[in-house]
Amino acid sequence: MWQDRKKPGIKKEVTDIKKTIALLTDFGLDDNFVGVMKGVILNINPNVNLVDISHSIKSHDISEAAFLLRGTFKYFPKGTIFLVVIDPGVGTERKPIIVRTKSYFLIGPDNGVLGFAAEEDGIKDIREIKNKKYFLKPVSTTFHGRDIFAPAAAHISKGKRPTSLGKLQVNMKRLNIPEALLDKNTLKGRIVHIDRFGNLITNIKRDLFTQFPGNRKFKIRIRNKSMNRISQSYQAVKPGYPLAIFGSLGYLEISVNRKSAKDYFNAKKGMGIDVIFKR
Amino acid sequence: MWQDRKKPGIKKEVTDIKKTIALLTDFGLDDNFVGVMKGVILNINPNVNLVDISHSIKSHDISEAAFLLRGTFKYFPKGTIFLVVIDPGVGTERKPIIVRTKSYFLIGPDNGVLGFAAEEDGIKDIREIKNKKYFLKPVSTTFHGRDIFAPAAAHISKGKRPTSLGKLQVNMKRLNIPEALLDKNTLKGRIVHIDRFGNLITNIKRDLFTQFPGNRKFKIRIRNKSMNRISQSYQAVKPGYPLAIFGSLGYLEISVNRKSAKDYFNAKKGMGIDVIFKR
Amino acid sequence: MWQDRKKPGIKKEVTDIKKTIALLTDFGLDDNFVGVMKGVILNINPNVNLVDISHSIKSHDISEAAFLLRGTFKYFPKGTIFLVVIDPGVGTERKPIIVRTKSYFLIGPDNGVLGFAAEEDGIKDIREIKNKKYFLKPVSTTFHGRDIFAPAAAHISKGKRPTSLGKLQVNMKRLNIPEALLDKNTLKGRIVHIDRFGNLITNIKRDLFTQFPGNRKFKIRIRNKSMNRISQSYQAVKPGYPLAIFGSLGYLEISVNRKSAKDYFNAKKGMGIDVIFKR
Repeated sequence: MWQDRKKPGIKKEVTDIKKTIALLTDFGLDDNFVGVMKGVILNINPNVNLVDISHSIKSHDISEAAFLLRGTFKYFPKGTIFLVVIDPGVGTERKPIIVRTKSYFLIGPDNGVLGFAAEEDGIKDIREIKNKKYFLKPVSTTFHGRDIFAPAAAHISKGKRPTSLGKLQVNMKRLNIPEALLDKNTLKGRIVHIDRFGNLITNIKRDLFTQFPGNRKFKIRIRNKSMNRISQSYQAVKPGYPLAIFGSLGYLEISVNRKSAKDYFNAKKGMGIDVIFKR
Repeated sequence: MWQDRKKPGIKKEVTDIKKTIALLTDFGLDDNFVGVMKGVILNINPNVNLVDISHSIKSHDISEAAFLLRGTFKYFPKGTIFLVVIDPGVGTERKPIIVRTKSYFLIGPDNGVLGFAAEEDGIKDIREIKNKKYFLKPVSTTFHGRDIFAPAAAHISKGKRPTSLGKLQVNMKRLNIPEALLDKNTLKGRIVHIDRFGNLITNIKRDLFTQFPGNRKFKIRIRNKSMNRISQSYQAVKPGYPLAIFGSLGYLEISVNRKSAKDYFNAKKGMGIDVIFKR
Repeated sequence: MWQDRKKPGIKKEVTDIKKTIALLTDFGLDDNFVGVMKGVILNINPNVNLVDISHSIKSHDISEAAFLLRGTFKYFPKGTIFLVVIDPGVGTERKPIIVRTKSYFLIGPDNGVLGFAAEEDGIKDIREIKNKKYFLKPVSTTFHGRDIFAPAAAHISKGKRPTSLGKLQVNMKRLNIPEALLDKNTLKGRIVHIDRFGNLITNIKRDLFTQFPGNRKFKIRIRNKSMNRISQSYQAVKPGYPLAIFGSLGYLEISVNRKSAKDYFNAKKGMGIDVIFKR
């Protein structure tokens, strides 16, 4: 008898574990954009954890958001849905996508913003979000965060499968951001992010640095200053002095103890920073 | 036997659907005001979704908040409680009220801030919040958000009825904000909000615009520039060029593709914008 | 039979009351620091209320945060865990601690930031957080909020006892911040906080003020202005005029009706303010 196959008593209670939707946008907190997206989500699934990663991405700065997402996703519970809306192409033919990775779901426009995180976690499949059944109607041409991305995230958080949102696509857009380059004895990196404390985060990963034999001397150059050691904490130098350190994201950072390295070096995003190894 | 009337097995489990309280204030995020209000709410009802609409309303700007609330409420689940504290008259005899609309509860001071949203959703009744039983004591004269409004919202979210908070009152204060006016062949509107991207949101509703026969030519004038078409997306013009579009709120907006219309036009809230229809 | 001791039917369901973790940091909202901490917490306990008190504490301003925490904690439900990360000494030998007070848990670095709140609520015991089992590994030297404090808060929220985190310690660091002083007939206070509205919050507590016989005249002096009464609401004076009032935190505040007292007095944190009682 077929009814036996669905005994309520042995049903797996998947819904017991509350899902998390983590939001990353360039919408700021002054307008109602973020609140509206959360309203749309709660209207579909009132039992979800909503967490803000940041809404202060510089308007339309896709690479900044891609960098921040990469440094963030792995701290969230498996199954977390990342709702990423940095979308200067909203209303054009750029596609809304959902990327299933090893442990997560990434939802956003196919403009490269999801790329770093997707690759680091391992892509399982990519789908265009196309099933209008799950859109908020009428769909505007200026706010797909509200009309397409938020509803998609909410339905996934309720247990809907990505297959129901749209068909597989083979590729997604990638950002063409240069990793730190090795040029003879010099690692040529640059500042990719400056945080609230004025720390300068570079694109020089610890792995790349440590592939040089440990006993080789080096000089880290930024502007016309140089440092010749990696510190273990900000307090390794006196207050007001600069230091190099591997930051919490695993990248080389330039800091100033109790002050802002941004001010100290008059630094800007994109500025070069070299690590010169001695022969 | 009267006990039969209350069989636990057939009790409607209203509490299964988690309620949402959405907060809109001019408290900013630097102080502890918003956190304190949320603490007060969770102390009364720990099982509630707390969502921020915005806390960056300009200090005491009632009309800005009223406008934002109108563009936000309908995206939230039915039964959502909107806790709105823009309250320059705190400590005087302006009344704290709860407005029951067709689908929502609006809680805030009776200074007009709830008006637009209440009217758009349809007012069921208005009550003064007066029952001191539900106040946080001692009631301060400077922070009714904490002492009166937050507790009221929390109790409503727990299933208390508005009747328990206070008696009916007939009217609520309305804001005297001019809608866009039709003057012969000209729609005379103005900028009511400028968003984070520098988009200029006007008070010219799509309905008002489209009541003119579709084939009539028009000119949208702002400062000494004019546009003669409505775009369907920001990318309808080249980056750096201005356009007119019906935004996600249903109102005419002036934007600049990938740039700030605020900067482009050196625009300010309140500035006029005319739509001149050709005969 | 030992199994009888663990009948599921009589297990106390402590988890029915959802715990709250309230966050106070100097991390700002532009970076991913706060989001990452929340991800770490939800990974350990997805059923917790996360509430932001503020993340806009001035970088490394321990006393500002200590002040804000004292004015906030008591509005939260009993059992709330306060996760406070203002941590200029991260990576040095300053200790991470958990303080059990009469009704709350306070978690943060042992640098004084927890002191005011702990003392006001009443300290039960203080423990160093030392059990590496509950750390996120590898532990960085720059972000203990993520690696030590957030996991500790999450485990406590799930019902783990402070005893499992580390051993008792006798003392915690205190801030040496002068309370308002009574010098003959003058209460010598200062501005300890300026809120978003420009209100000047002093360290003169209502209790201290009212210990003078009620009928004695006084003059409140700030810069070269003086006021000789305490107002009951901001509207006790005309718009644009200054007033003295006991604010929602129970301290003497200087305000200007509908304007900023900060601008009016060109005030800064730390500025003196005297209350001179007449003989």
